[in-house]
Amino acid sequence: MVKKNDINKSALKVNKGIDQPSQINENAVKKITNRVKPQLKIDDYINGILDGNRTILSRAITLIESSLFEHQKLAQQIIEKCLPYSGKSLRIGITGVPGVGKSTFIEALGKHLTSSGHKLAVLAIDPSSERTKGSVLGDKTRMEELSVDKNAFIRPSPSAGSLGGVARKTKETIILCEAAGFDIIFIETVGVGQSEITVHSMVDFFLLLMLAGAGDELQGIKRGIMEMADAIVINKADNDNLLKAKLAKREYENALHLYPPTESGWTPVVDTCSAINNDRIVNVWEIITKYIALTKNNGYFDKNRRDQSVKIMYETINESLKNSFYSEKNIKKLLDEFENDILNNKISSYVAAQKLLEIYFNKKKIDYK
Amino acid sequence: MVKKNDINKSALKVNKGIDQPSQINENAVKKITNRVKPQLKIDDYINGILDGNRTILSRAITLIESSLFEHQKLAQQIIEKCLPYSGKSLRIGITGVPGVGKSTFIEALGKHLTSSGHKLAVLAIDPSSERTKGSVLGDKTRMEELSVDKNAFIRPSPSAGSLGGVARKTKETIILCEAAGFDIIFIETVGVGQSEITVHSMVDFFLLLMLAGAGDELQGIKRGIMEMADAIVINKADNDNLLKAKLAKREYENALHLYPPTESGWTPVVDTCSAINNDRIVNVWEIITKYIALTKNNGYFDKNRRDQSVKIMYETINESLKNSFYSEKNIKKLLDEFENDILNNKISSYVAAQKLLEIYFNKKKIDYK
Repeated sequence: MVKKNDINKSALKVNKGIDQPSQINENAVKKITNRVKPQLKIDDYINGILDGNRTILSRAITLIESSLFEHQKLAQQIIEKCLPYSGKSLRIGITGVPGVGKSTFIEALGKHLTSSGHKLAVLAIDPSSERTKGSVLGDKTRMEELSVDKNAFIRPSPSAGSLGGVARKTKETIILCEAAGFDIIFIETVGVGQSEITVHSMVDFFLLLMLAGAGDELQGIKRGIMEMADAIVINKADNDNLLKAKLAKREYENALHLYPPTESGWTPVVDTCSAINNDRIVNVWEIITKYIALTKNNGYFDKNRRDQSVKIMYETINESLKNSFYSEKNIKKLLDEFENDILNNKISSYVAAQKLLEIYFNKKKIDYK
Repeated sequence: MVKKNDINKSALKVNKGIDQPSQINENAVKKITNRVKPQLKIDDYINGILDGNRTILSRAITLIESSLFEHQKLAQQIIEKCLPYSGKSLRIGITGVPGVGKSTFIEALGKHLTSSGHKLAVLAIDPSSERTKGSVLGDKTRMEELSVDKNAFIRPSPSAGSLGGVARKTKETIILCEAAGFDIIFIETVGVGQSEITVHSMVDFFLLLMLAGAGDELQGIKRGIMEMADAIVINKADNDNLLKAKLAKREYENALHLYPPTESGWTPVVDTCSAINNDRIVNVWEIITKYIALTKNNGYFDKNRRDQSVKIMYETINESLKNSFYSEKNIKKLLDEFENDILNNKISSYVAAQKLLEIYFNKKKIDYK
């Protein structure tokens, strides 16, 4: 059944932000709050972000997540100023159902990256209202080493809200993180909803974490996600699980082999790893760098980035148009009635649509074709 | 790159129809045209359709495809009257790239059905402007037996036009065919575009025809289509090809096995056949009837039908809203400019969207949020 709520969600709708856990460096905060009170000026934000000051970055992200008009206005100004400094990171989507070991994996791969001189930001998209145990908010405490790593920045998902809203906030957060000098961004999702399509539309590389055995573990993964993956990595390939993981690897390879070629020219790769033992984590990173090299070379990397930016504009517009329509009082009232008439074969779906459109546009005194 | 043309296409846009090859029974036509000239009255259409008169059915479909306002008005009245008699057929989507042997397959399966007392309508969706050699228009001459079978009704795709437009016409044609007593409807697509998602949204069962060998033949199939299939049938499993087809069957079975379970509770099936030798065609029909039995039993069949009808209303509305926006003169002018600004990091995708929305709604003197 089409859920009206889904349709109602607009990318422009601003949702109430959540209080962020304070981002260390209390002295810096004190210094700043002494200087400007109660709020930083736009230049303080910009300079702070460009200096890589994580406290200020964090406060700017809180503005992005805020529902207050003044905060949103300031946030948009900051984003606009940061835009020219953005775009230089690698954006990597990581998805997998709860239990697959995402936080352990991100901790292991993250440590490998920061210890090789990279600056890593870990963001999450999770538009569900309940916090699942796989979300970064929980992970943060579990990513013990990464959360105190000065080259890592972990940011939980914005508060529950529409997927479009969360997507916008995440995309804008990426811009700020990039301006702050983070050269690798992980975007984490739990792999059970529509979020993956959204994440896929804002990353350079999409990694799917799986477990060995094609049975129950797969239940949670949405159909279609496997086909989006640039790599499938089977985690927990250790001890008793090792043989099973290797078998699963071959099975997935056979399956991917049957898929049509990707637009990127890249053949999706299957590998195994054991995040908890830090085993084959480096190999995963090698896969990603190979992908980046290939797609930068054949032009797909840049083409994809450009396509993504423009696509976001169109999607935002389309979501807002829908929101304007479905939040109209008269329409809201009539939707159920028309749905029933359709289900009872009293009216065709197209005529129902046409009648509702006439009501909307007449009321709005607009000509439409 | 997002194509503006795609966005511009509205489900409500009416495209120029094509002249239909006359549907036999010249006497009936003469009788009718003598009685009412130059056009049938609404009751003549309704009675003719409910009587199963294929000439009148054909003329009513031509009204659906017409771009004339008067024809559209009449068509909608006919559809409304036919609606209570519709819904009783099995709607089966059949897709496969040109060369897979679709017309031979449809001829073989079609003959099997009509000879067991079924009445079969074969429709096509093919929104491309060029006629591909796989389209029904060409097929009709190739479906030699079926095209003269009094229990079969073959209707080429409406003329080139937007996918939304073609989808609407096809959906409305289904209603008329069902009212005319056709109890099985095939909807054929060539498997290379977006049409399959559209077809998937209007059928009960989705069949993907493939060839043995996972190489070049797959090039044309869009990613994601395999996951929509309720059955994959490998055609041309004969002579030298037989062994290859059997191997392919096992490969696809392994691949499907890795997919997450379907909402219908059905496990997609892989089989082979040789349409030209009429070999294992009956087995394909058995698969379909098993699926229907299962889903009618577990409630998915009806649920899916209801979801589809309502979804069409929402999709039609959403397409029309987009059409209204993107066909606005001011917007058209500014889109390229904003796209460039986004690509040059001068403006964020969200702000660009917001500015365009403001222009649209202000011009339209509408409040939006």
